[in-house]
Amino acid sequence: MVEFDRKSFFPKKKVFFVKDLIDLLNVNHDKCNVENNFKIEDISSLDYLRDYSVIFIDGELKNSNLKSSNYCVITNNENNLNYGYKNTLLVSNLSNSYNQLINNMYYHEDNALFPDEFDYINGSYLSKFSNIDESVSIGKNCVIGRGVQIKPNVIIKNNVVIKNTIIKSNTIICDNTSIGTSGFGFNFNKRGASNFNPQIGIVFIEENCHIGSNCTIDRGKIDSTFIGKNSMIDNIVHIAHNVIISDNACIAAQTGISGSVKIGSNVTIGGQAGFAGHILVGDNVIVAAKSGVTKNLKDNTVVAGFPATDIKKWKRKIIKERKDGY
Amino acid sequence: MVEFDRKSFFPKKKVFFVKDLIDLLNVNHDKCNVENNFKIEDISSLDYLRDYSVIFIDGELKNSNLKSSNYCVITNNENNLNYGYKNTLLVSNLSNSYNQLINNMYYHEDNALFPDEFDYINGSYLSKFSNIDESVSIGKNCVIGRGVQIKPNVIIKNNVVIKNTIIKSNTIICDNTSIGTSGFGFNFNKRGASNFNPQIGIVFIEENCHIGSNCTIDRGKIDSTFIGKNSMIDNIVHIAHNVIISDNACIAAQTGISGSVKIGSNVTIGGQAGFAGHILVGDNVIVAAKSGVTKNLKDNTVVAGFPATDIKKWKRKIIKERKDGY
Amino acid sequence: MVEFDRKSFFPKKKVFFVKDLIDLLNVNHDKCNVENNFKIEDISSLDYLRDYSVIFIDGELKNSNLKSSNYCVITNNENNLNYGYKNTLLVSNLSNSYNQLINNMYYHEDNALFPDEFDYINGSYLSKFSNIDESVSIGKNCVIGRGVQIKPNVIIKNNVVIKNTIIKSNTIICDNTSIGTSGFGFNFNKRGASNFNPQIGIVFIEENCHIGSNCTIDRGKIDSTFIGKNSMIDNIVHIAHNVIISDNACIAAQTGISGSVKIGSNVTIGGQAGFAGHILVGDNVIVAAKSGVTKNLKDNTVVAGFPATDIKKWKRKIIKERKDGY
Repeated sequence: MVEFDRKSFFPKKKVFFVKDLIDLLNVNHDKCNVENNFKIEDISSLDYLRDYSVIFIDGELKNSNLKSSNYCVITNNENNLNYGYKNTLLVSNLSNSYNQLINNMYYHEDNALFPDEFDYINGSYLSKFSNIDESVSIGKNCVIGRGVQIKPNVIIKNNVVIKNTIIKSNTIICDNTSIGTSGFGFNFNKRGASNFNPQIGIVFIEENCHIGSNCTIDRGKIDSTFIGKNSMIDNIVHIAHNVIISDNACIAAQTGISGSVKIGSNVTIGGQAGFAGHILVGDNVIVAAKSGVTKNLKDNTVVAGFPATDIKKWKRKIIKERKDGY
Repeated sequence: MVEFDRKSFFPKKKVFFVKDLIDLLNVNHDKCNVENNFKIEDISSLDYLRDYSVIFIDGELKNSNLKSSNYCVITNNENNLNYGYKNTLLVSNLSNSYNQLINNMYYHEDNALFPDEFDYINGSYLSKFSNIDESVSIGKNCVIGRGVQIKPNVIIKNNVVIKNTIIKSNTIICDNTSIGTSGFGFNFNKRGASNFNPQIGIVFIEENCHIGSNCTIDRGKIDSTFIGKNSMIDNIVHIAHNVIISDNACIAAQTGISGSVKIGSNVTIGGQAGFAGHILVGDNVIVAAKSGVTKNLKDNTVVAGFPATDIKKWKRKIIKERKDGY
Repeated sequence: MVEFDRKSFFPKKKVFFVKDLIDLLNVNHDKCNVENNFKIEDISSLDYLRDYSVIFIDGELKNSNLKSSNYCVITNNENNLNYGYKNTLLVSNLSNSYNQLINNMYYHEDNALFPDEFDYINGSYLSKFSNIDESVSIGKNCVIGRGVQIKPNVIIKNNVVIKNTIIKSNTIICDNTSIGTSGFGFNFNKRGASNFNPQIGIVFIEENCHIGSNCTIDRGKIDSTFIGKNSMIDNIVHIAHNVIISDNACIAAQTGISGSVKIGSNVTIGGQAGFAGHILVGDNVIVAAKSGVTKNLKDNTVVAGFPATDIKKWKRKIIKERKDGY
């Protein structure tokens, strides 16, 4: 998991201590315990615990890693009050509580733009708070946002928007692509922009990647969306929030990868393929064009079709259909 | 149906009275009747009749609503001369006549851009003839065109193009998205840019919507493409001309909705789904990812597959195929 | 095949004579013959041979057209030394040798941007080395690159990126589209941006075409990607490198056409269709929405489904599945 300094991307709006959350989130005083009223420095996920942070736990979870007094567990399940967590707050609606805290604690692009933080340099807008190596080439009409780090010899073509992102050396980003955009995170039962779950993670793109034109790569919700080194992504590809793609991926045009999918090394993915959310795809997997992958895939599998299955089975099915007059 | 002032988006090029059309459209003097030679103020559709307007009727149609002397019916069907319409012109090719009149009557972006009508304000080009509330946040490299209205607290991110559109309060539009673009309206048998049917409608986006990155929403041909309040649209989604989406829609990435589709409230649509043109989709419908919807869907249906069918049937089919060795 | 002056798009970095390549590409002196040590002026493909050029031949090929002393054959197959080619160099890895020569011989946008070559005119960046007719309308935030030719009465809307492209008269290009972008050409076994095969061809768009919003059209690798006259392309369409589309095509939204596909005249292609690479599609072909075309299609065929088949067979299959309870 990639480390990053969240507040360099998302400035703090307001300081909160753990006890402040009791009022902010309307917590019943009988339904919480606070042993360490620390100043909240960050937000955690189960994948990556950070000191002096808040973590949101959906449903019952007994997890000894959460017992440090430097974490504050916010949960919608009362049993979690009994598992030895040093700071625990019970809330009725976890999604609302997440929105309430994050929107009050951080500036992010869905509650504030900072139009005066940019320099206009050779045809593109670069945040005064970005960190771009002087060897980087940037085309025209780009926007590079606050906190963005771009390492040596990266090429950014034209009309590219990059926010909340770290890009390692020698990577190329092509025209009209949007990186670090807001993930599609929402409360299914309470829709609308004002109820969106704020996305305060980043995108991390490793070295020597090629990202095509008119793509979108959404930033992580709390952690990072990750593209491994030497990965090659064609045009009009969508990578959703929290996706992890390991090294040497090859992804053809118009493919879409849903939120939190984890993909191994050396995968090859045809055009117009789609992946359901939260699945695991192994190393060396090959996914044929137009496949719809709905389940985990082991290392070295080759799949096709929708729902995607072993390509040999898929071919047999097609041959049988052909015999049947199709 | 949303009302709007067409000429605030599409300036009038030339004034026409009903009788002017006889020559302009090469109408045979024996094949027309004109009781009221009014000055033509607007264009109508059957969905929305406007006073002192022209309406194009393809094929035979007996419709008492068209009997006002304030309408002029242009049609390719001679029988329509007998149905009591006060002003009727018979033409041989309706698509050509539409193009001929609209291209002569209105400026639109496929026959003229107005590069000098813009102010460059804080990194974006805003038409002098747009109406943007002062609370609106706009990123860099955006273009906001003539006639566009943007209501309070809207956030427009970067490199967004918005033309011929009205956006209500609290809506968010993400990076590199194009809204109010020309719909794909053409004469099937006479192709090419010069034969495109001019699109002189608008896009109307209700309050509290979230439109993702790198999307396209085409404006209506004569009326408006409509997105209902609280609707949430993910990245790289295409919404064609004249589509009506009601409140609280949730539409995942890379979905495409063809022209004139009408969608009810509270729908949920997975990624990479597609909809054939002109179909009706009811309230609370759920469409699984990668579905191809080819027929009307009743309220509360849940569909999957291509052609999309009841999701239970689709799952049974998949299970059967699995048993058969697929 | 369209002729163009490669160096007007891709400036020469360095002069090479045939004998220089022996060292540059690490050729064994026993594994080459050089009868005419000419100054290398250009690169050829088998589709289009150019005088004083190098051509890369993968595998064994006996081709009498290559016997001119004005060509230099670089190949990975030793037998090609015996076929009478006047200048032949044997290399071990053809993709690497291609990269090595092209990256040393030409500037292209994956090894160098030229940010100072642009004028900022009425809101868009136009290369000082582009050739744009004065009747052309260009919106805001566009980038028109080096060598680009745009003929009379073309309309380019907003935030459009056009590089390495020739556009004939009366064509319209809509918002946020990227044309002339780098094709997805790589060495399957050696991934990453630094191993990309440089793409030094162009896009040629004939007269009276309509290209929608948020599309991508990649330039050819050595020759040109071609869009025939009167062709109409909807939004979010991807056209890969070396694709040839003949006159009067109509291509609906979100379709993707893979590399080197050749498409005849008067085709009609529905939305979200996909085409496998290198296939041939005849004249007057109709491809239904969401089809996946995997094989050559004869003139006048009408196909649907994935893999695409005769639409009547596809419909029969669907009807049968319906009867079976699907």
